[in-house]
Amino acid sequence: MAQVEFWFEYASTYSHLAVLRARAAAEAAGVRLAWRAFLLGPIFAAQGLQDSPFNLFPAKGANMWRDLERQAARHGLPPIRRPEVFPQNGLLAARCTMALPEARRPAFAEAVFRAQFGEGRSISDTALLAELLERLGEEAGAVLAAAGEAPAKAALRAATEEAQALGIFGAPSFTTEDGELFWGHDRMEDAFAWATGVAPRP
Amino acid sequence: MAQVEFWFEYASTYSHLAVLRARAAAEAAGVRLAWRAFLLGPIFAAQGLQDSPFNLFPAKGANMWRDLERQAARHGLPPIRRPEVFPQNGLLAARCTMALPEARRPAFAEAVFRAQFGEGRSISDTALLAELLERLGEEAGAVLAAAGEAPAKAALRAATEEAQALGIFGAPSFTTEDGELFWGHDRMEDAFAWATGVAPRP
Repeated sequence: MAQVEFWFEYASTYSHLAVLRARAAAEAAGVRLAWRAFLLGPIFAAQGLQDSPFNLFPAKGANMWRDLERQAARHGLPPIRRPEVFPQNGLLAARCTMALPEARRPAFAEAVFRAQFGEGRSISDTALLAELLERLGEEAGAVLAAAGEAPAKAALRAATEEAQALGIFGAPSFTTEDGELFWGHDRMEDAFAWATGVAPRP
Repeated sequence: MAQVEFWFEYASTYSHLAVLRARAAAEAAGVRLAWRAFLLGPIFAAQGLQDSPFNLFPAKGANMWRDLERQAARHGLPPIRRPEVFPQNGLLAARCTMALPEARRPAFAEAVFRAQFGEGRSISDTALLAELLERLGEEAGAVLAAAGEAPAKAALRAATEEAQALGIFGAPSFTTEDGELFWGHDRMEDAFAWATGVAPRP
């Protein structure tokens, strides 16, 4: 079965769309997805960006929020509720992801994004993450404790370095076993079609 | 019949894909397209960008060229041949567009983009533009002369100012009669679906 690595960042608005649609889309395409949380902050900083491009370029940012609403409606996702702060600090959510077994990461990621962009909640809030973990049947205290320990931190750092080495510059991104990099929620299906050999080769 | 304004910039790679696909896609969607050439340079400059973001951010630029190749293949367009200079100076091509009657602008725009990204030719070259105009049955000398006169220059300046007033920050863009702005080749069909009332409203 073809595999695609799915790189997402918790603060990213288009990662929201991709995370909520990825499981069904991958299944429909016959692709095995490897869910890879990473941090975009260090990658932006290495490009000389000290903030999200959506904040640095206001016309682009304003259009992004409207586009996000339209895309959510188009794909039958819940209406967008914009959090007060953007981008949010997704560090703790990303470390919690690393502290979970791989198979249980997708459900956690979906819950975090639904809370952030569907309910406008603050994902840097430990109490919110504990609530989401418990609702998923996880031992919230143990996961949050592990998120603060060296292995989870090192795993997230390694993922971010790997993303950068792959040429990733934004989120979400999709990488294939033969070395293609697809950037953006609107390339998700293209990445799957490439991985399964359906997409024509240039 | 629903109308969509189609904003394109001659130096823009994703405008290439949109220009080559727009006529067939609009016809399929039942949309009347108003073709609007404009200049992105002044709009980038107003955002503090002195060059294309694809040059300012090399990882993003490298991926754009690969994506462009893949998208061309996906849509059955000719293979991309990358011009030596990017972005090219599209000023003369844009002024020639303004010097043509509206109905004959789409064919000229298609010819310019095919020459630029399908053959890697220099679109700031007057001889190339003359050749393309002649092939289309235009009086090349007269069009090029009109392109250098005040009405064509003023029309292009007015289009660029109108684009900026509409919140346009990149190309291609699509605007609808009810005030929606869609940015990017990958939103072309979304814009058409919105204009005809097919797209769900958020």
